[in-house]
Amino acid sequence: DEWDETWLSCTREGNECYHYVGDTLAFPKQTNLERGHFLHGPYPATHFGPKACVLPNPTSVMHIQDPASQRLTWSKPPLNVLVIRKIRDETLLEPFRELCRFLVEEKHLMVYVEKKVVDDGSLMRDDSFSAIRNQLCTFREGFDDISDCIDLIICLGGDGTLLYASSLFQGSVPPVMAFHLGSLGFLTPFKFESFRTEVDKVFEGNAAIILRSRLKVKVVKGTFQKNEQLLSAQENGILPHNHINNEAGKITLQLQVLNEVVVDRGPSSYLSNVDLYLDGRLITSVQGDGVIVSTPTGSTAYAAAAGASMIHPNVPAIMVTPICPHSLSFRPIVVPAGVELMITLSPDARNTAWVSFDGRKRQEIQHGDR
Amino acid sequence: DEWDETWLSCTREGNECYHYVGDTLAFPKQTNLERGHFLHGPYPATHFGPKACVLPNPTSVMHIQDPASQRLTWSKPPLNVLVIRKIRDETLLEPFRELCRFLVEEKHLMVYVEKKVVDDGSLMRDDSFSAIRNQLCTFREGFDDISDCIDLIICLGGDGTLLYASSLFQGSVPPVMAFHLGSLGFLTPFKFESFRTEVDKVFEGNAAIILRSRLKVKVVKGTFQKNEQLLSAQENGILPHNHINNEAGKITLQLQVLNEVVVDRGPSSYLSNVDLYLDGRLITSVQGDGVIVSTPTGSTAYAAAAGASMIHPNVPAIMVTPICPHSLSFRPIVVPAGVELMITLSPDARNTAWVSFDGRKRQEIQHGDR
Amino acid sequence: DEWDETWLSCTREGNECYHYVGDTLAFPKQTNLERGHFLHGPYPATHFGPKACVLPNPTSVMHIQDPASQRLTWSKPPLNVLVIRKIRDETLLEPFRELCRFLVEEKHLMVYVEKKVVDDGSLMRDDSFSAIRNQLCTFREGFDDISDCIDLIICLGGDGTLLYASSLFQGSVPPVMAFHLGSLGFLTPFKFESFRTEVDKVFEGNAAIILRSRLKVKVVKGTFQKNEQLLSAQENGILPHNHINNEAGKITLQLQVLNEVVVDRGPSSYLSNVDLYLDGRLITSVQGDGVIVSTPTGSTAYAAAAGASMIHPNVPAIMVTPICPHSLSFRPIVVPAGVELMITLSPDARNTAWVSFDGRKRQEIQHGDR
Amino acid sequence: DEWDETWLSCTREGNECYHYVGDTLAFPKQTNLERGHFLHGPYPATHFGPKACVLPNPTSVMHIQDPASQRLTWSKPPLNVLVIRKIRDETLLEPFRELCRFLVEEKHLMVYVEKKVVDDGSLMRDDSFSAIRNQLCTFREGFDDISDCIDLIICLGGDGTLLYASSLFQGSVPPVMAFHLGSLGFLTPFKFESFRTEVDKVFEGNAAIILRSRLKVKVVKGTFQKNEQLLSAQENGILPHNHINNEAGKITLQLQVLNEVVVDRGPSSYLSNVDLYLDGRLITSVQGDGVIVSTPTGSTAYAAAAGASMIHPNVPAIMVTPICPHSLSFRPIVVPAGVELMITLSPDARNTAWVSFDGRKRQEIQHGDR
Repeated sequence: DEWDETWLSCTREGNECYHYVGDTLAFPKQTNLERGHFLHGPYPATHFGPKACVLPNPTSVMHIQDPASQRLTWSKPPLNVLVIRKIRDETLLEPFRELCRFLVEEKHLMVYVEKKVVDDGSLMRDDSFSAIRNQLCTFREGFDDISDCIDLIICLGGDGTLLYASSLFQGSVPPVMAFHLGSLGFLTPFKFESFRTEVDKVFEGNAAIILRSRLKVKVVKGTFQKNEQLLSAQENGILPHNHINNEAGKITLQLQVLNEVVVDRGPSSYLSNVDLYLDGRLITSVQGDGVIVSTPTGSTAYAAAAGASMIHPNVPAIMVTPICPHSLSFRPIVVPAGVELMITLSPDARNTAWVSFDGRKRQEIQHGDR
Repeated sequence: DEWDETWLSCTREGNECYHYVGDTLAFPKQTNLERGHFLHGPYPATHFGPKACVLPNPTSVMHIQDPASQRLTWSKPPLNVLVIRKIRDETLLEPFRELCRFLVEEKHLMVYVEKKVVDDGSLMRDDSFSAIRNQLCTFREGFDDISDCIDLIICLGGDGTLLYASSLFQGSVPPVMAFHLGSLGFLTPFKFESFRTEVDKVFEGNAAIILRSRLKVKVVKGTFQKNEQLLSAQENGILPHNHINNEAGKITLQLQVLNEVVVDRGPSSYLSNVDLYLDGRLITSVQGDGVIVSTPTGSTAYAAAAGASMIHPNVPAIMVTPICPHSLSFRPIVVPAGVELMITLSPDARNTAWVSFDGRKRQEIQHGDR
Repeated sequence: DEWDETWLSCTREGNECYHYVGDTLAFPKQTNLERGHFLHGPYPATHFGPKACVLPNPTSVMHIQDPASQRLTWSKPPLNVLVIRKIRDETLLEPFRELCRFLVEEKHLMVYVEKKVVDDGSLMRDDSFSAIRNQLCTFREGFDDISDCIDLIICLGGDGTLLYASSLFQGSVPPVMAFHLGSLGFLTPFKFESFRTEVDKVFEGNAAIILRSRLKVKVVKGTFQKNEQLLSAQENGILPHNHINNEAGKITLQLQVLNEVVVDRGPSSYLSNVDLYLDGRLITSVQGDGVIVSTPTGSTAYAAAAGASMIHPNVPAIMVTPICPHSLSFRPIVVPAGVELMITLSPDARNTAWVSFDGRKRQEIQHGDR
Repeated sequence: DEWDETWLSCTREGNECYHYVGDTLAFPKQTNLERGHFLHGPYPATHFGPKACVLPNPTSVMHIQDPASQRLTWSKPPLNVLVIRKIRDETLLEPFRELCRFLVEEKHLMVYVEKKVVDDGSLMRDDSFSAIRNQLCTFREGFDDISDCIDLIICLGGDGTLLYASSLFQGSVPPVMAFHLGSLGFLTPFKFESFRTEVDKVFEGNAAIILRSRLKVKVVKGTFQKNEQLLSAQENGILPHNHINNEAGKITLQLQVLNEVVVDRGPSSYLSNVDLYLDGRLITSVQGDGVIVSTPTGSTAYAAAAGASMIHPNVPAIMVTPICPHSLSFRPIVVPAGVELMITLSPDARNTAWVSFDGRKRQEIQHGDR
């Protein structure tokens, strides 16, 4: 439930998104009018004036499917459905009962629910629900891994539940249907009133989907030789590329975030000093409260509060936002999706920094870590 | 010279850029180390959990060449070179002489120079230069169209000269070599000291290039039925798509901008009220000093002063930035390249608005115009 | 009515204000609970450590009345009341009728109304109102000066009417009662429903009041020797003080603003360059869209949109806010009330600038003007 | 030395400051030209139009000495001088030696130095300095209280040393002379080159001084009944005033800050929720990273990085700045000096908050604390 206190995304923008880095969540959406294709990368112009032209280079040609035309289908009929419900919210109790009853009794599906959700007091006392409850498959986060048997995820109760769903599936993520009750959420397009027809539509297949990207993050401990390497790096502004790719170091954490990675000063009240590398090149040092690396989804969350522009989810980009930077002229920067960003403590940093992932798994970053 | 007073771009970022909308300028660049490809759009994930997958749709597949691998070559040996020099700057006089002498006497090229540049007083008085001057082809902006006979453009003197070069070529733009004297400009990568070798390299072909995009802008007068159309548009938030595409209206201006298009309150001291449409959909009304629509190049210019984040030129996106918006929570937004943006006066706007293009061609926008 | 399009103030803060510079408007207010005095300037500490102390200097002691304790009274019974109504707003018609009837028939006061307000079509057609209308004193702005005969001002319809009232009284301003209909305005504390009792209270005297300050502004033409003076000024950062005070120049305008003075680029699309002097000292040059000098009242209006912090009206200060400054690190600055600010074109400015006062009386500023 | 990592103030503005709340530090300054007085509170206007006037209220009249005219003198000849030197900075070693030699041998003063400063390795090895060293009085922070025997403080090495000096004197602060070496600091007006003459001037007395204010801060534990009190407080927006003043609670800390008090989320990665009261009135709830309450001095430090405007030290005001607020329209606000600000956790806050004072003495704030 602590998710309720993390930064939730909110925006007035459309919500198609492009696959680019890390993996992708599929969100069935309500189809809206056909619109102009987003041609992220048509052939570049090949002639410039009467005589100049571009050397063709077949080896570097990529093939991209227009994101606006993506549709979801099923290789086999879906059977296992995970229902995620924001707990400690009584108003969700009745919709939750309705949904379970529909999925179990009408659709005859296997419904997975987290144990603490079904153990909710008022649910226990509700005899009319006991028949349904006995047919629910329960699991406990961290103990039971259900990530490879779920065909569809249904979320009740706001954007926070999506961050939670995202955290449960570090590999391939089943399609997510998010229902909002009350205020419309950025990530929760469906009205609950019509949940029966919406669920049916998705099961039929050929539903329009939204692809929403996550960032793949690694924490590598103690292999980064700051002294020599970094100094030379700062002299000529570049690190040997293989250095960045070498994974010799101990990878202590590897996960995917839907909103952002935050590196900040943690409990310290002094400035944090971190260096930011783009594809091995030192592009800037951030002195301040910290730095936020976010997806377009996350650009409307914490990053927005730190002064970032809002990125339409369809833009293949990563937002890098300093938090209260010492230099008043340091602006958030938008870099292309697909780049490799590396963050380390600055060689002269006196304090450590702390990193967190979608507001979770907070841990300390020391010299040599990246 | 008024260009000196327009917003110039400045950034610490890299400077490759991707072709996406409008046309493209080719900038030979100094090759830097091989770097990880920017995969703007790899194949999207096609499976989501055990059973969900994406319907393949061959018709919507695009082919993109990795921007980092673009190289310039020549179909025929280049002959005609346009030299652009910032005037009213005495320090550029000697470099200009040197460059012309090199191009004319050593490279035996046809050198085009704007008339007011060669008519410069101190150049006239310089007898040692008269031989060269007589071999220069002069032209007058607005009178002589040289846009289809220039093979290469060479700029002396800062980013302003590039905005000027851009304005001379509304169609295909020959490659541009930009030399900075003194402070390093964002758009002027080459040191003048080594201009001989740099020019030779480019003439040899196979030079690495930067593609820098422009926005294609149209001003359409008096066909936009605000009353019925817009009201219904605002009810259901959408305009019939064909409406946007219909060009029945009188197109009074059509050009390409390298930095930005600005719509502001002009001489009025009252708020401007403009509506912003994305692919026919009304996304927001801007009440304030105005709105800036800029390329990644322009995102570091006027837009930055209005609070925009800086976009790496390699991101296929358009930055939309409100200028002093009445709503304190209105943030700049980054939309995908390839979308069609339309700006009109709001139906209830009491004042007209004014539009300018890279700081030029300022004109009034009335009700019905877009 | 154009006032509706100027920046209106809005804030969640309290609304006592302190008299400090220019003159003052008195706003009867609804008394709220007793609060701690705002001691703007108690005696400074006079001892610092065991032996250091401040030299007493009786000549520079000022006497201040605590703003929180100010109350309004009458030397003679008020007779002449000016009623200001936002025109082109039908919803205000009935309240306006009610108010006039009350003031004329029940309170037997002389009611002043602007001619264009009574000439309103629907009022003319309303026979039931004709008796009242015949007893109203009408005046035309710019023709009839009523500024020295009005005892009390009553505003109907939002903050804009207060800017208008302020503009009518360039000298001493009678107390202003502002009624809001519908949304609560920053400057309009009274509900209209209870207008009878509120008006009675104020007439009885001993009403709590708010003092809201205005800035005194002069436009002086063509006496400012930029070349020598400014250059030397810039060398040693200071102008001879008498220079600032000398009013040899032609004063073309002198008025008081309730919100702000704005100096901007006007119709030009190029940057404006203005120099800002504080008590004769050049403190900064602003390159950008312009600069806003505002009262605490105005700090929540246009200045807020340009990024200023909101100043509690009780703070004796002036807010100086750059508009889209070229330097990203240029922040708004808060200077003490009582200072003399002077703005001129920078010596090297290629364009003129334009100045406006509470959004009105827009005019051009050339070299030599201040 | 950790002070080097706290926020240091920097500004291009003048640096006189007004005494207003908490106590005051006296900074001898280099006299600059006579300037117009800052009349913070001249008599308010007493007449408004022909008949309205202000009720005189002698009981609330205050007497203020114009800050621009303050001068420092001595009741007895100063004898004890505290020299503060930034450690870990070799470049300060020689200036420190020179200064001590001058004060001890030429001025025959008692010089106090922190023990860890004289125990510096290179100083120990320097025989030529041993004679001087033996005459220095050393003390250890936290063990030896010298706060009531120091007549004058001399700082070497930047603004950080002033925050440190401020922390040593929680009661009356002796005058502070701050010498900058290298870059000019905001708080360090004197060049070291001329330290002999500058020190002599101050000893002669009648030196112009700057008064720089501090905020008086209390931490009160566990007496604040949030439930009933706060709820009613939120209903009618007000707390019984005596409640705020009652100090029944345990005061665990009471000190004065020169820059700011920061309340933030501390080690938590979730939003902090704090309520802000002004003179007992709930004015806003801050949801975000936290809130900064700063002096004009501090307004150019951390607060500036969080988006605050810069306040001229002469303005009697307090800056309240939210850190990354969840509400994008929440702006920093400037409130009058002399108000009582109270910060508590919001009743519904799930996390605690942390407070620090000029970047030090960090501690946790729980429900019921204020």
